[in-house]
Amino acid sequence: MLNIRKLSANAEGFKAELEALLAWETVSNDSVNEIVKDVLKNVRERGDEALLEYTAKFDRLTLAKGSDLEIPKSELEAALKRIPQDQREGLELSAQRVKAYHEKQVMKSWSYTEDDGTFLGQQVTCLDRVGLYVPGGKAAYPSSVIMNAIPAKVAGVPELIMVVPTPDGEVNDMVLAAAAICGVDRVFTLGGAQAVAALAYGTETVPPVDKVVGPGNIFVATAKREVYGTVGIDMIAGPSEILVYCDGKTNPDWIAMDLFSQAEHDEDAQSILVTQDAEFAEKVYLSMNKLVKTLPREEIITKAITDRGAIIVVDNEDQAIEMINYIAPEHLELSVDEPKALLPKIKHAGAIFMGRYTAEALGDYCAGPNHVLPTSRTARFSSPLGVYDFQKRSSLIMCSAEGANMLGQVAGVLADGEGLQAHAASARYRVKD
Amino acid sequence: MLNIRKLSANAEGFKAELEALLAWETVSNDSVNEIVKDVLKNVRERGDEALLEYTAKFDRLTLAKGSDLEIPKSELEAALKRIPQDQREGLELSAQRVKAYHEKQVMKSWSYTEDDGTFLGQQVTCLDRVGLYVPGGKAAYPSSVIMNAIPAKVAGVPELIMVVPTPDGEVNDMVLAAAAICGVDRVFTLGGAQAVAALAYGTETVPPVDKVVGPGNIFVATAKREVYGTVGIDMIAGPSEILVYCDGKTNPDWIAMDLFSQAEHDEDAQSILVTQDAEFAEKVYLSMNKLVKTLPREEIITKAITDRGAIIVVDNEDQAIEMINYIAPEHLELSVDEPKALLPKIKHAGAIFMGRYTAEALGDYCAGPNHVLPTSRTARFSSPLGVYDFQKRSSLIMCSAEGANMLGQVAGVLADGEGLQAHAASARYRVKD
Repeated sequence: MLNIRKLSANAEGFKAELEALLAWETVSNDSVNEIVKDVLKNVRERGDEALLEYTAKFDRLTLAKGSDLEIPKSELEAALKRIPQDQREGLELSAQRVKAYHEKQVMKSWSYTEDDGTFLGQQVTCLDRVGLYVPGGKAAYPSSVIMNAIPAKVAGVPELIMVVPTPDGEVNDMVLAAAAICGVDRVFTLGGAQAVAALAYGTETVPPVDKVVGPGNIFVATAKREVYGTVGIDMIAGPSEILVYCDGKTNPDWIAMDLFSQAEHDEDAQSILVTQDAEFAEKVYLSMNKLVKTLPREEIITKAITDRGAIIVVDNEDQAIEMINYIAPEHLELSVDEPKALLPKIKHAGAIFMGRYTAEALGDYCAGPNHVLPTSRTARFSSPLGVYDFQKRSSLIMCSAEGANMLGQVAGVLADGEGLQAHAASARYRVKD
Repeated sequence: MLNIRKLSANAEGFKAELEALLAWETVSNDSVNEIVKDVLKNVRERGDEALLEYTAKFDRLTLAKGSDLEIPKSELEAALKRIPQDQREGLELSAQRVKAYHEKQVMKSWSYTEDDGTFLGQQVTCLDRVGLYVPGGKAAYPSSVIMNAIPAKVAGVPELIMVVPTPDGEVNDMVLAAAAICGVDRVFTLGGAQAVAALAYGTETVPPVDKVVGPGNIFVATAKREVYGTVGIDMIAGPSEILVYCDGKTNPDWIAMDLFSQAEHDEDAQSILVTQDAEFAEKVYLSMNKLVKTLPREEIITKAITDRGAIIVVDNEDQAIEMINYIAPEHLELSVDEPKALLPKIKHAGAIFMGRYTAEALGDYCAGPNHVLPTSRTARFSSPLGVYDFQKRSSLIMCSAEGANMLGQVAGVLADGEGLQAHAASARYRVKD
């Protein structure tokens, strides 16, 4: 039988147990840090030459010259033609729905003019060039290409550069097909810290970008942390998590499988069921035991459920909501009759899946919203990846002579108060005599 | 005579010289890192007791118990009554204008329903509790209280906690008055890494927050970097910079003083003049030499101008614009006749000050937009502090039975393609038989 924690929200010591369950500290690894720093330095100083060496070493792929690193667009189109029809249609539908959703996010410039003629506003622009990291090998996810590339393109980013390692020369057709569908501009066969270095600093072949996004292993994550400041980065995600809140009226098999769809990601993933129905909790547990055996990733699921899973029984809905807001889950399923009624009470969650039909997996692939979401309680202060991450704002200020006269006097007083006399003088030059 | 670099954009080696001039790498300091880690650990484990020890040691302020760390609201109101009338009016006008501007930034929730009944949207919420760090002593800036507190309050943050050290018990009345005006909820006399630790982890007296914002010295910046992930943080700013682009028709004294208003911040600050008028460049240089002697911060200004300042002569407006977009300045002054005509060409800048009357200093205090801006070329990918930093988004997905039927099939195909069978099964449970 699966060994999942069964907790009661009213039990003594529950809060401490919950805290321990949720605790996740990214372990920084000194030897990884050393290696990554070395790779970054090398690529920064030696450019393509270093890239070719690392690619030969880590991906066992020997290329003659820098330009061989580029996968031509014709290859992407060929991959798109090669994949099965249903996969192609699936990717296309996904891209189309993700685009439609993200188009609602586009920020627009605005401005207003005050009575004295002073003009204030905010100019919204997009990033010039963005780099998208896509993992290679087994964990190659075309859905991740769609979720990162589409918001950048909707924001208007003119140049989107993708890097994806092809270990032993092995190419993932679905990933290349997704790149073709999303309008990725250039693709390089690069992975690991060397790919992040190439994007951040640029080489003879790879142009430097302004922001690097996309998931990766610990070397990639460490490299992104290191180059942050030189370029922007997206969040560095922790393990994936789901909190399913169910009133006890959904098919327990469905709920069990929803919990497993997180647990199968990796052994650190977290799946939590919250319900006020203790009998239902037991039914889900039985379903889990029955279903786990049917899944190819049984081993990963079993470890994730044992180490980090939980079934929590609460007294009532209010207690469930309190728990949700405390946990601030990356994925929240509200498997209840009237999920919309709960929304005003839910303060912290990455994405909210409402009703019995809305499996979290639908959001991973094709519902429309992004699947890159804040993990490890960071939904308390951060948001899903979106068009916002590929746009930026510049403040606009244009004072009329009248406006500058008034504001100059005030700024002069406040600058004097802060002991900044050049500020005061600069402001007062604009005050009428 | 001031020793400022005079460069011509067409000179051989200009690009390399410009790059060297702009280069800014935050030096990470091992001994600071050690001290900060120790402080964080101590406060996390020992709470108030550690806070009282550090406050006695670093601020030479001995307090009997944790609750003595709190500065009561009555003290803030008393400070507001104590400061001179013109300062009070200045702070009030500033707060009011900053509020009016930031109210335009508030993000609203939205949603839409598709033909098959599937509901998609985005729910916008604010952070629950925010911590605002305010430096104490000489560099105590009430304007910084306004610029950080007002966007949080406009976003709707219910609890805004301010920390400000009071070295030797010395309180800055303008800072406390600004806190009163902005509606800061609680204030603690705490500074340094220990203040950041208290905000991030909470103690018996200080409640834990969800995000820490505000400027600070290297100990504060290092502590913020360390606690990032546990809480959100705002950007970690580099030295302040200004790029003034002038067509040669503004009073050279005004331009010289505008350049100094950045240079006086600290010795690493950067002031750059770009103009196509070589004669005007020389006039500004003469003004700088004349005016620097009139300023109490002459020494700081001289060092900043010598080490990091530049006067760059360009051929024409297009070359100036190209330079602006490359430099992506924190503050950009367009001291020209038709600044609005240039806006569509300007892609990267923190704040744009347009026209001869718009001294950058007006934006620092009271124009309305925020003075917390991206430095060191990061305006290529980041934005001024705003209401956005205190709001967050949750994706909303509610599939109808029809919608889940269609999306479940697609998600099934894509999940199979990625080798995630629990995802596929979870999606397919919602497909009609």
